[in-house]
Amino acid sequence: MMKTTSLAALLLTSSTLMAAEGMWQPHQLPEIAPQLKAAGLQLDPDKMTDLSSFPMNAIISLGGCTASFVSPKGLAVTNHHCAYGSIQYNSSEDNNLLENGFVARDMSEEIAAAPGSRIYVTQSLTEVTDEIKNAVPDDAKGQNYYQAIEDKQKQLVADCEVSQDYRCEVYSFHGGKSYFLIKQMAIRDVRLVYAPPSSIGKFGGDTDNWMWPRHTGDWAFYRAYVGPDGQSADYSEDNVPYSSDSFLKVNASGVQENDYVMVLGYPGSTNRYRTAAEVENQFNWVYPTAKEYREAYIDMIKSVAPEGSDARIKYESTIAGLANYAKNYGSMIESFHKGDMLSRKQQLEQDFSKWLAANPDMQKQYGQALSQLKELVQKSQQNQQRDLLIGYMGRTSLWGVAKKLYRLAHERQKTDMKREPGYQQRDMTRFTQAMQRVNRRYDAQVDKAVLMHFIERYAQLEQAERVAVFDQFMGLENGFDKQAIAAKLDQMHANTKLDDEAQRLAWMEKSVAEFKASDDPYIQFAVSQFEHDMQQEKQDKELSGEFQRIRPQYMSALIAYKQSRQQQVYADANSSLRITYGKVKGYSPKDGMVAVPFTTAEGMLAKYVPGDDEFDLPESLRKAIKSEDYGKYRDEKLDSVQINYLSTLDITGGNSGSPTLNGKGEFVGLVFDGVYESIIGDWDYDPALNRGIHVSSPYMLWVMDKIDGADNLIQEMTVVE
Amino acid sequence: MMKTTSLAALLLTSSTLMAAEGMWQPHQLPEIAPQLKAAGLQLDPDKMTDLSSFPMNAIISLGGCTASFVSPKGLAVTNHHCAYGSIQYNSSEDNNLLENGFVARDMSEEIAAAPGSRIYVTQSLTEVTDEIKNAVPDDAKGQNYYQAIEDKQKQLVADCEVSQDYRCEVYSFHGGKSYFLIKQMAIRDVRLVYAPPSSIGKFGGDTDNWMWPRHTGDWAFYRAYVGPDGQSADYSEDNVPYSSDSFLKVNASGVQENDYVMVLGYPGSTNRYRTAAEVENQFNWVYPTAKEYREAYIDMIKSVAPEGSDARIKYESTIAGLANYAKNYGSMIESFHKGDMLSRKQQLEQDFSKWLAANPDMQKQYGQALSQLKELVQKSQQNQQRDLLIGYMGRTSLWGVAKKLYRLAHERQKTDMKREPGYQQRDMTRFTQAMQRVNRRYDAQVDKAVLMHFIERYAQLEQAERVAVFDQFMGLENGFDKQAIAAKLDQMHANTKLDDEAQRLAWMEKSVAEFKASDDPYIQFAVSQFEHDMQQEKQDKELSGEFQRIRPQYMSALIAYKQSRQQQVYADANSSLRITYGKVKGYSPKDGMVAVPFTTAEGMLAKYVPGDDEFDLPESLRKAIKSEDYGKYRDEKLDSVQINYLSTLDITGGNSGSPTLNGKGEFVGLVFDGVYESIIGDWDYDPALNRGIHVSSPYMLWVMDKIDGADNLIQEMTVVE
Repeated sequence: MMKTTSLAALLLTSSTLMAAEGMWQPHQLPEIAPQLKAAGLQLDPDKMTDLSSFPMNAIISLGGCTASFVSPKGLAVTNHHCAYGSIQYNSSEDNNLLENGFVARDMSEEIAAAPGSRIYVTQSLTEVTDEIKNAVPDDAKGQNYYQAIEDKQKQLVADCEVSQDYRCEVYSFHGGKSYFLIKQMAIRDVRLVYAPPSSIGKFGGDTDNWMWPRHTGDWAFYRAYVGPDGQSADYSEDNVPYSSDSFLKVNASGVQENDYVMVLGYPGSTNRYRTAAEVENQFNWVYPTAKEYREAYIDMIKSVAPEGSDARIKYESTIAGLANYAKNYGSMIESFHKGDMLSRKQQLEQDFSKWLAANPDMQKQYGQALSQLKELVQKSQQNQQRDLLIGYMGRTSLWGVAKKLYRLAHERQKTDMKREPGYQQRDMTRFTQAMQRVNRRYDAQVDKAVLMHFIERYAQLEQAERVAVFDQFMGLENGFDKQAIAAKLDQMHANTKLDDEAQRLAWMEKSVAEFKASDDPYIQFAVSQFEHDMQQEKQDKELSGEFQRIRPQYMSALIAYKQSRQQQVYADANSSLRITYGKVKGYSPKDGMVAVPFTTAEGMLAKYVPGDDEFDLPESLRKAIKSEDYGKYRDEKLDSVQINYLSTLDITGGNSGSPTLNGKGEFVGLVFDGVYESIIGDWDYDPALNRGIHVSSPYMLWVMDKIDGADNLIQEMTVVE
Repeated sequence: MMKTTSLAALLLTSSTLMAAEGMWQPHQLPEIAPQLKAAGLQLDPDKMTDLSSFPMNAIISLGGCTASFVSPKGLAVTNHHCAYGSIQYNSSEDNNLLENGFVARDMSEEIAAAPGSRIYVTQSLTEVTDEIKNAVPDDAKGQNYYQAIEDKQKQLVADCEVSQDYRCEVYSFHGGKSYFLIKQMAIRDVRLVYAPPSSIGKFGGDTDNWMWPRHTGDWAFYRAYVGPDGQSADYSEDNVPYSSDSFLKVNASGVQENDYVMVLGYPGSTNRYRTAAEVENQFNWVYPTAKEYREAYIDMIKSVAPEGSDARIKYESTIAGLANYAKNYGSMIESFHKGDMLSRKQQLEQDFSKWLAANPDMQKQYGQALSQLKELVQKSQQNQQRDLLIGYMGRTSLWGVAKKLYRLAHERQKTDMKREPGYQQRDMTRFTQAMQRVNRRYDAQVDKAVLMHFIERYAQLEQAERVAVFDQFMGLENGFDKQAIAAKLDQMHANTKLDDEAQRLAWMEKSVAEFKASDDPYIQFAVSQFEHDMQQEKQDKELSGEFQRIRPQYMSALIAYKQSRQQQVYADANSSLRITYGKVKGYSPKDGMVAVPFTTAEGMLAKYVPGDDEFDLPESLRKAIKSEDYGKYRDEKLDSVQINYLSTLDITGGNSGSPTLNGKGEFVGLVFDGVYESIIGDWDYDPALNRGIHVSSPYMLWVMDKIDGADNLIQEMTVVE
């Protein structure tokens, strides 16, 4: 007995010590193998470094979201909110897929996803740090440093992208300390296979967004199609399902409290290694200001486009996006003021500086990095209010369209390699699709009202901060005259033709001279601002180059410091493939309250509000709950179906749609959100409060089986128990 | 081993079966002795029926609140919110006891409580059902029935109240099924001994009111003083501490989860046996309407008396009271719509009716009771909007004062025995004190604005509902003219002298003729309404008499029905002494969340907002928490001091200040509130959601010991561990 006890005690200790913090690159897994095994991983960490075999090659990117293959025939599961655009795109008044859901009973019923939808399957990953560093002249600084890196990156990408079937990208780690070239197959024929109605897939809506308790059925299924030759191809009836080399088995039992779980996916971006000064500015100025701007933006849309109007329908997703991040910022501000991140950062910088001072070698190499970085940070904050305001103006539709089109005319004068990212040949399909989509989310009255609002704020800036050519074009030189600006915007919107898709596409082919000669007011606006924008961009690149030069030095020193203290270091998220592991676990959002790790079908029904936008539920689902028709999907402990669960996993945006795997590598759900208290996790992981929210595999299967009748998919998948 | 397991299993089963529902009369304890013992009571239930011995004679009433003796020298502990009036009364700008708290270092420093403060010590309890029933003529109905009971009650009370040292009252149980005469010693010299600062005693304020998690230090200490002869006496320096025959020992360790606890106290009123029709009207009309009136009342006060103004300070407790019940009603409406109380009531009435129909004897005796009761209920709801509006008008100060004074002039014409309760000789001290206190909570502008608001609502009633003499006095016969009413109220307030204490006291002695001859506008108002009010009161008594006649029949039948189903029946709360028992236990306010039964010192500190009205904390307390200076008051499991805890106890208003006792009868805290989900408990006890909130004895002792320096009281009490 003694032995068992010791082992149990040992396991307990390790699992107590083990923070779930960390978004690990696959090649790091062998480093952390002991922790992974102790936590409950049954797969071989060494084998998981191979991106071309199970489970890594089942993990795919949608560009901004993650998905995973769950059958050998290219069937991919992701979040409902990741497939939302495609569901919306295929919806009409007569056939509202958002409202009704959609199930293709066989492959012939599968429908094309929204234009531009892609499934990216990773082909290879190559470290290219040396290539890039060697391409930078020793004395390069600022813009030169930036340009040298950008040029080299473009060259590596161009060499890699042998055809439009592939997409390559260079990912920078630790602010430029190392670089990896990742090559992905870009599957262009993506079809919608199954989505539950929004009353399941988006249950809880904005009210429950970032919240626990949660009951959202946030899943949808795509299928990847390729040409008969197995190569990526545009949509065609002749195309065939992609043969996924490996895929995840689906576990019908879900998980239990304290179970090992891991998420494999493409987290977008975190800021765990920012300096105290950056943190302070971000939480005391940027987030509070941006939150207020977003709320004002929403108010403008709502005041011009009343509920139920056509205009409002076009802006629903814009509103949702704005509200989502306003809430997000609100949480971070709240957590920041409750917590002690800033003082810990300051303490870290002090300790780090002491350590650096005590290590002559390090001091010689990196002694100036922190102070130089601080200087750059300060510089980057100059004019930040103006830049933020102009950024929000640039979110309006025609402003953005006009500027992008004119920029394209300029970029097209260069050889492809010299063009700005986003304007190269490889970007043109997406560019065209973006231009095609504009009118789905555009209404002239809303566009004008929002612009007006931010111009009014901008006009209150001090003269020194203002942009002369902007003031000139808008007629702000002699002060802000609201009526005059309104008339100006009315005139611009009445006379522009950029609200017409054909016109926009036509402008994609026109020359700079043609733009200059145009009398379209939005084109004239773009032309008038261009020189200033380029000047500004140059300054930005100068600064970026300096950051790229200095931050890796700081990070190298910081990593050395951390390693000297036996701390394993992972890089900030950068949309590259990562693994995070931890366990199913609740948390205490506040003293006296505990969030338990599971929600139940009955709890979902208790939230039901008939006909509500956010809390409606399909009748069939309600009936099934009332009659406890749970079949084999019943969780004995809960005496219900587990709907959503909490985990300690370290996730962020981009992880949406990521499969959650148990220790055997079986699919046990999808991560789709984090709790309110963990939103600040992008800056600081708190083991007590950082929790991911997952939709549970048994809930998915139960709905597919009993409610939505997606039996064909259950048949296609390998379901284990 | 087998035996132990069985016993444990048995205990588990009984405690699972055992609902904590029930506010038991002491004489019922032997009936429920098996449950009490199984739950963990170590005292003898048979002995607890004796009101003149431990622990029952340690439980005292403050009239509206409960308290208990915790030393042989009349030291009594209750809630801070029960002693609030006395703390406020003794506060001045220079010496704000509410803000600073108050500790008498020895008896000489103890200060007189607010005028009218009383400590009631129960002397005897006698069933008087037969006396009362026999006093009612066989054919009496309506007002005659009512009057016969009232006359008999008054006679019993008069016979019992041999001097002003005693207070007697007849309590009606089950709507008049039985009556008990309770005789209490009324101690008139009550002194404030100790109150923590409001930042402890009212921590969380209105925001946390009815809420969990909670961190309120809701306690205060009084001492009862009597004349040197041991008899009740007015305040005098010669008075001596009352010798409490028994008192509670104080347990310094508090409680643990699942511990047996019981509360002994004077719960005010519940409505557990109302009919479905009564429930429906209450939740669909009364509460929603009253909630809205209260919120409007608060808005009026706030708009006229801006924050920080003298007027506002006078109305803070009025606002708190209005808000408290607006929130209370809101919770009940919410719970009602979430739950199924109404359909359960309807089901019960169906089952009950069936059972009645199947029992010829019962049918003969009680067959008409339910339908007769339903008829009365319907009658009582006529004009309910008008009556509610007039009720809220009557809450304004001078309206109430004028009407009460004129009523007194009328009542004084009768012999004492014939007077209306509240206007008898025995009531005159309290009457006088109420008249003295008026100006502490009166501001003319606020008084006028509130009255104006409700007159405006009243004026929108249909003509048929309106009161002719009111319309006539206010000039509403030809429609509502806001300016005219405002002028009228201005004139009334400008010319009345009822805002002067001496005048009010003088009017207490004047005759009806003098009132009629007066040119004081508020006196004129009272005179003008009197005949109508009397007419209305007559109708009300008619109805009350019928309720008193019919409801006991219904209750007798219902109790017989319940007993036929082996259900033990307790009576609705009626301010008489009750015991409720249960255990320390959390609950799940919603799916996915659990309220754990304890809050901690650290959790309290996390709520701290410097200088805030509700969430400030004394520096000394914050320091003690930061340094974990918990001494012997530390709870090992929590690694902190337990601040508040939850129990399943069945409590309601009037239980405030009640001691919480463990199985040995030791004091382990004070109950001071219920959770939001249990507010509907006045109508329906839900074992899953009904939770009382207690302040824990170790928190009290810790603050007394380490923060407030009330060592003398710790010395005086018998503290056990």
